[in-house]
Amino acid sequence: MDVKAAVAFEADKPLSIETVQLEGPKAGEVLVEIKATGICHTDAFTLSGADPEGLFPAILGHEGAGVVVEVGAGVTSLKGGDRVIPLYTPECRQCEYCLSRKTNLCQAIRPTQGRGVMPDGTSRFSLDGTMLHHYMGTSTFANYTILPEIAVAKIREDAPFDKVCYIGCGVTTGIGAVIYTAKVEPGAKVIVFGLGGIGLNVIQGARMVGAEMIVGVDINPSKRALAEKFGMTHFVNPKEVEGDLVPYLVDLTKGGADYTFECIGNVNVMRQALECCHKGWGVSVIIGVAAAGQEICTRPFQLVTGRVWKGSAFGGARGRTDVPKIVDWYMEGKINIDDLITHTMPLERINDAFDLMHKGESIRSVVTF
Amino acid sequence: MDVKAAVAFEADKPLSIETVQLEGPKAGEVLVEIKATGICHTDAFTLSGADPEGLFPAILGHEGAGVVVEVGAGVTSLKGGDRVIPLYTPECRQCEYCLSRKTNLCQAIRPTQGRGVMPDGTSRFSLDGTMLHHYMGTSTFANYTILPEIAVAKIREDAPFDKVCYIGCGVTTGIGAVIYTAKVEPGAKVIVFGLGGIGLNVIQGARMVGAEMIVGVDINPSKRALAEKFGMTHFVNPKEVEGDLVPYLVDLTKGGADYTFECIGNVNVMRQALECCHKGWGVSVIIGVAAAGQEICTRPFQLVTGRVWKGSAFGGARGRTDVPKIVDWYMEGKINIDDLITHTMPLERINDAFDLMHKGESIRSVVTF
Repeated sequence: MDVKAAVAFEADKPLSIETVQLEGPKAGEVLVEIKATGICHTDAFTLSGADPEGLFPAILGHEGAGVVVEVGAGVTSLKGGDRVIPLYTPECRQCEYCLSRKTNLCQAIRPTQGRGVMPDGTSRFSLDGTMLHHYMGTSTFANYTILPEIAVAKIREDAPFDKVCYIGCGVTTGIGAVIYTAKVEPGAKVIVFGLGGIGLNVIQGARMVGAEMIVGVDINPSKRALAEKFGMTHFVNPKEVEGDLVPYLVDLTKGGADYTFECIGNVNVMRQALECCHKGWGVSVIIGVAAAGQEICTRPFQLVTGRVWKGSAFGGARGRTDVPKIVDWYMEGKINIDDLITHTMPLERINDAFDLMHKGESIRSVVTF
Repeated sequence: MDVKAAVAFEADKPLSIETVQLEGPKAGEVLVEIKATGICHTDAFTLSGADPEGLFPAILGHEGAGVVVEVGAGVTSLKGGDRVIPLYTPECRQCEYCLSRKTNLCQAIRPTQGRGVMPDGTSRFSLDGTMLHHYMGTSTFANYTILPEIAVAKIREDAPFDKVCYIGCGVTTGIGAVIYTAKVEPGAKVIVFGLGGIGLNVIQGARMVGAEMIVGVDINPSKRALAEKFGMTHFVNPKEVEGDLVPYLVDLTKGGADYTFECIGNVNVMRQALECCHKGWGVSVIIGVAAAGQEICTRPFQLVTGRVWKGSAFGGARGRTDVPKIVDWYMEGKINIDDLITHTMPLERINDAFDLMHKGESIRSVVTF
């Protein structure tokens, strides 16, 4: 079938709106009509050419929402008409990782996903006979896409596509890091480094679970108002702190934070985030993605005296199990997504969404089809 | 009263056997007759002068066992005749740390302990009117010592002093790191870096909790036989591995270890220990003490893909609660201490114990009084 897609033909060039060809679903796959998709830094990272695993030509996009149109042979958990969110981290419930109960990093289709193809090793997308790569197993920058059944979360029928698409990545990454990775408890003191889309979702996750003190750290004071709306109780601008930031934050939290979250991707900030944790039990979670080759460092004494250093991918969430719950929380008013979606536009203007992101003018742009 | 002690008058000099004066217990303190004490690397570290917090003159020693002789005012949990192990990590059960349920690092008397005095700010030891410092709150290189009540674990009456003294530090540090810090579960795959006294205790802790695969890593092949006796299932000599050690260990464990333990104090090994953990859930625990100023480094990707980096001090054990249990395990034959105590000698030969340690000829030397 012909579908409309934004194609990344090569690195560091704008996306091109094209009519491309999409094959129907094979066994274990579903055809989904994408109704809305967010534009995320990870798309921009790959498009820039800096992603060593980036493949071209490809249809990018990994933060979508849509409706199942058709299911392939053997698909039992989904049917036409189901409202869904594509999952770049699938949940097969069969592999060593899914069965470990310790991680959300299902590896069932990792090799083929990394090569930009479906689990059978081929692509469903092509343009005039030339194969186009899938991206993160999702390729939501097209009005129809093919997904493995295990990479689809079925959500409630009344969820608005142009809002809940954000749960496909950013919302879950931030809130999940609080709930599933760190397991923040009521009364906890939390510090969040970086008040962009991820940081704001960490903040509202911390508020939802009853954190007592939620400190936001950002060098841009214009972030303050929205962060406070999301639950931030204290704002710290490192540029305004005299002396070192770490002792300042330890002092502010009366001994250090119970949990800290790095939402920037800066290895120096990752160290600060660890070292302002409370002696004995503070846990620091890395969410941000650092540039290739960069390293984090600290003195081992920081760990021997009880601090824990960990990371989070897709918020530690199991996509098919947890994403529908997060959609429910949005529908019940427990979390705020509307204020994070600052721009909505048609597919034809998708390059504007990248421009807004690079200029720091948007929190999240959403393309609707 | 006059007591016999090995005094450290200055850094990097042998200990001197002296008759020193000991005041009786003040409120909240107990007088303990030390019957046996182990000699640990930490004593040697302080004696060398490399410990930036080292104080002289002092009575070193922190791995003892003995009998309560007299209790000060207000002491309720101990009485004369009780068999005990001194605790350099106390357990007050009242402070923020003890009540957190998240750490064993009781801070009730941390400042005075660090200054080499009892909680009231003064020392009980003196020599001809000159004050001698306490060490780690324990000072077990004397046949009598004063301890705060909260720094004493009461143990069973039939435990042999010259064996269970080792539970005062090394045994608990190793076994506790497995049980309390890492919480290793049956069937787990474990890698232990460094097969000295701590590493051997990690190995027997892992065996006790039912680990399936216990890999020992050491550049000294003579360590192999005893480690196998303690439960090691696979021995790896990094000098005999072609290529990088990390992929070799990942391969050996079929994807990486569930838990790794660094028992050396080498920051490069600490990185290897983290990076040979299993993606998704591997936990690496630092036990070894690195030289001052040294740092650990890794790529944040290691953490974002699910590995956890933490540390352990005194095995995460709460002294008064957990040390008596470990004594029971020894008495019940669940753990082996006898084979780790390679030398026993009188106080007069305590400097020989340091020599044996420096030459690598002992696992543990014990001085009996």
